[in-house]
Amino acid sequence: MAIMITSKDNEKIKYTKSLLKTKNRNKESKFIIEGYRILTLAIECSSKLEYVFINEDFENKEEHVDFVNILKNKNIKVYKTTNKIFNELIDTEATQGILGVVEFKPRSLDENLSEKHSFVLILDRIQDPGNMGTIIRTADAAGVDAIIALKGCVDIYNPKVIRSTMGSIFDMNIIHATQEEAVRLLKLKNFDIVSSYLDTNNFYNTVEYNYKTALVIGNEANGINDELVSKSDVLVKIPIYGNAESLNAAVSSAILMYEIKKYLV
Amino acid sequence: MAIMITSKDNEKIKYTKSLLKTKNRNKESKFIIEGYRILTLAIECSSKLEYVFINEDFENKEEHVDFVNILKNKNIKVYKTTNKIFNELIDTEATQGILGVVEFKPRSLDENLSEKHSFVLILDRIQDPGNMGTIIRTADAAGVDAIIALKGCVDIYNPKVIRSTMGSIFDMNIIHATQEEAVRLLKLKNFDIVSSYLDTNNFYNTVEYNYKTALVIGNEANGINDELVSKSDVLVKIPIYGNAESLNAAVSSAILMYEIKKYLV
Repeated sequence: MAIMITSKDNEKIKYTKSLLKTKNRNKESKFIIEGYRILTLAIECSSKLEYVFINEDFENKEEHVDFVNILKNKNIKVYKTTNKIFNELIDTEATQGILGVVEFKPRSLDENLSEKHSFVLILDRIQDPGNMGTIIRTADAAGVDAIIALKGCVDIYNPKVIRSTMGSIFDMNIIHATQEEAVRLLKLKNFDIVSSYLDTNNFYNTVEYNYKTALVIGNEANGINDELVSKSDVLVKIPIYGNAESLNAAVSSAILMYEIKKYLV
Repeated sequence: MAIMITSKDNEKIKYTKSLLKTKNRNKESKFIIEGYRILTLAIECSSKLEYVFINEDFENKEEHVDFVNILKNKNIKVYKTTNKIFNELIDTEATQGILGVVEFKPRSLDENLSEKHSFVLILDRIQDPGNMGTIIRTADAAGVDAIIALKGCVDIYNPKVIRSTMGSIFDMNIIHATQEEAVRLLKLKNFDIVSSYLDTNNFYNTVEYNYKTALVIGNEANGINDELVSKSDVLVKIPIYGNAESLNAAVSSAILMYEIKKYLV
């Protein structure tokens, strides 16, 4: 049996709700994942799932009952609450009635950029949660070894980001670092810094990429900051053949990641 | 002066609100665009802008007053309404206080697929409005000559689609057709039908694409329907190097469009 909680003033409820805010997520090193599929992935990836909340309707499905039993066998606490209170703990409208609280470990550059790594993605002020999640998912698919999220990026543990990663949040090696630190270490390790930049005549598909490449993707509206542009070894742009002004940041990063990957396989 | 409307029972208000529904948009051949930037694009692209609504706050900015004058000089009717009523005419939360109603002409395959066209994108049941809009924007950028949206795709005049196209909704040649019609005509015109498909060993970057290519992108969860797979000349997939299960539909279509475009330039 799941432990039933019916008061919204319950400490567990209040604590979980507090994790909807970036500030509290960072303080506690915990984030919320929501939905049946991502919870099954969290279990498969052996993520540190602290506890789970389900709503009154969740156990109406047989496979859901089985899943709750799996959680209990793994000694993960399962709390049950009313549909109304549950809805206050999530940021979506359509819910499957299950959420989990997961612990994360902040990753430092020194410890998480290894000698074996040859493909790094640097994100400069990516703001849209959907873009951020899609970029993480694509980087995972494209075999990126590490993502370095610089200051000014949307929180990677934002629920919308988590959803868009489709599970890659558990797999990707995502590092937070300052720009200075990142550039210094990458240059030391002989990476080429390749930046996506509109004001160049260098088309992305005319470049021979280095076997160690750090690709930089900039802010949706303003691109890459000047300092980082000046530190880049190569500036590249994707040609626009039609009337569109630009490409979406997740789309352009995908085109560039898959092009660069051809040189690293 | 804009014509002030303060009653939500006004016919113009009721008519505009009705266009939030796909059924009414199709019946009237009209759709709503929202926001200052997309309205300026509509004017630049000489779209048939029928009339405009602004809210009480819109004219607080000087550039907005200038824009209203431009609209009037073009004999486009500008109506003003309360912020509260205006908010019922749109589907976003943050608004700039301006919307326009635009006429569209449904495009038939026969009239809109010309001898000069060499690059076509076929969409099979793309359901997510953000994906649809991003695909339209990317197709515009990648120099696609025509998009054929098969039955079961989300309405391209859905407000979320429009927003994600970033203006490309005015530029792209988007055709609605049945699968049978599309396949028949494309084969007749010597197009290769290239389908993105997971169950093949054919990697997208090992194929020499025909100078006339129709790329097929399938539904987010279920891919391309069996009939269309069997009619394809080439099946291709994008390699997954990491742990991600798949790529987002807008991302994979972008990678494929830009790869194919290399053969068509």
